[in-house]
Amino acid sequence: VSSPALNTAVRFPTLAVVGVGLIGGSIASATRQRGIADRVIGIGRSRERLADAVRAGVIDALAADANESQAAAAEADLVIVCTPVDRIADDVLALAPALRAGSLITDAGSTKGAICRTVQCGLTGSIPFVGSHPLAGSEKGGWEHADASLFEGRVCVVTPLDDTPPEVLERVSAFWRALGMRVRHMSPDDHDRALAVTSHLPHLAAAALASLLTNGEAELAASGFRDTTRVAAGDPDLWTAIFLQNTEPVLDQASLLIEQLREFQRAIRQGDAGRIRQLLEEGREGRQRLDEAP
Amino acid sequence: VSSPALNTAVRFPTLAVVGVGLIGGSIASATRQRGIADRVIGIGRSRERLADAVRAGVIDALAADANESQAAAAEADLVIVCTPVDRIADDVLALAPALRAGSLITDAGSTKGAICRTVQCGLTGSIPFVGSHPLAGSEKGGWEHADASLFEGRVCVVTPLDDTPPEVLERVSAFWRALGMRVRHMSPDDHDRALAVTSHLPHLAAAALASLLTNGEAELAASGFRDTTRVAAGDPDLWTAIFLQNTEPVLDQASLLIEQLREFQRAIRQGDAGRIRQLLEEGREGRQRLDEAP
Repeated sequence: VSSPALNTAVRFPTLAVVGVGLIGGSIASATRQRGIADRVIGIGRSRERLADAVRAGVIDALAADANESQAAAAEADLVIVCTPVDRIADDVLALAPALRAGSLITDAGSTKGAICRTVQCGLTGSIPFVGSHPLAGSEKGGWEHADASLFEGRVCVVTPLDDTPPEVLERVSAFWRALGMRVRHMSPDDHDRALAVTSHLPHLAAAALASLLTNGEAELAASGFRDTTRVAAGDPDLWTAIFLQNTEPVLDQASLLIEQLREFQRAIRQGDAGRIRQLLEEGREGRQRLDEAP
Repeated sequence: VSSPALNTAVRFPTLAVVGVGLIGGSIASATRQRGIADRVIGIGRSRERLADAVRAGVIDALAADANESQAAAAEADLVIVCTPVDRIADDVLALAPALRAGSLITDAGSTKGAICRTVQCGLTGSIPFVGSHPLAGSEKGGWEHADASLFEGRVCVVTPLDDTPPEVLERVSAFWRALGMRVRHMSPDDHDRALAVTSHLPHLAAAALASLLTNGEAELAASGFRDTTRVAAGDPDLWTAIFLQNTEPVLDQASLLIEQLREFQRAIRQGDAGRIRQLLEEGREGRQRLDEAP
């Protein structure tokens, strides 16, 4: 985990955060706590919610309409778009033209391919954007749950395209490192294929599992069910957008999961203890890969 | 949560625990801490492991062969069989004949139908046995992880058959209540059908999910994957036995899970946002039933 003292070189005095929810609010808190930003402007749709966030000290100022948002982007050294994945590309394309020369824009979306391609197609000249995905979050939404330590020690994937200027990639990566994150570079499509396995499929499986629980059985669910289905409490709108932005990898992984469940069924039906044990060992080994990951 | 003071009427001065692992060790610790038992004899196969448990203060005495086990059962006011589910019925049938009149025997297995039927068939006269399933545990095994508070506030299912003597049911239920548990009575088959949903299927799904993770992706797994697959770290031998003892309900539930995953696939393939959202809402509602359960 990086300490703030190591990152004093990374400074974005004015930061604009588009979408002040759990992630946007946590970025706002973390950047000021670590001295990366002096001032954070929250850009959003609900003036009332943003004003509450200002009063709560999560952000310093707000922008709630198109004019105010353009002005905030013009003031910002870095803009981070933290809206739902189906709105990110539009938000980037709306704000990027307002940036001063040398300012940067990135996002925090859980999918990258569709977003990065749409932004690339929509911008001309030197592109001040590179996509990001900080792997941190919670099933709880809203800036009320903002947590300045949310990013410490976690991984952030930054996803350059061929024409991403190296200095944009480097400075955005430095920003996430300054929040205490370990940064990995990968293509948007590689990111989406990996996240289909590590995040999108588990969400889908958790939702499918949780939907099988009836009222009468709920009392008999111990910690195993609770953990296995925790993410199913997440916002259905956010996750609908994620599944629709990462269609093919999610469909492929769901097919692999169904096939593995069928292998279990075959082995159980045949009373094949050796094969059941082998399938469970494969699961345990997958789980060990997780625990051994850096 | 019951306090020890409320349970002073429930006394089993000498307790024998067969299988001194996480559950058996935790029962040993909890009963002495709460003054339910004065002395706990651990019955098992490995004299060395049991001797270690005595030295660690988890149990007071040990029995590691057939003669010692019979003597321990003859001394005990209550015997609790905490071995893997495929050994429980044999262990009960081996020890029940040695019990003194008025002493009781129960188990702590995660499946109930096969165990209770086998025990019922194997015993004659007044049966001192009723099946139990304390819903508490961890993916960590061994008495080294024993925890006297493991059972507090959790549910224990006690599963009488038609010919279970009422006083056996009542006294075994009182024992679990004295450990701070909420006791529910249900038939062995109803228990097994419910647990297929709340425990066995989540384990199977977690193992199937975890097995899809490759080395390269492990670093990109955030807390969602970690929680969803936590139980996949469990002991493959224990879980193989559970699946083989609860075959039909597990196969039925696995089919329902596969069907729900296919519904997701159809909706994602068709780009049907409304249907995806609906399926995710069903998951969220199932999850809410869990959080609202007493």
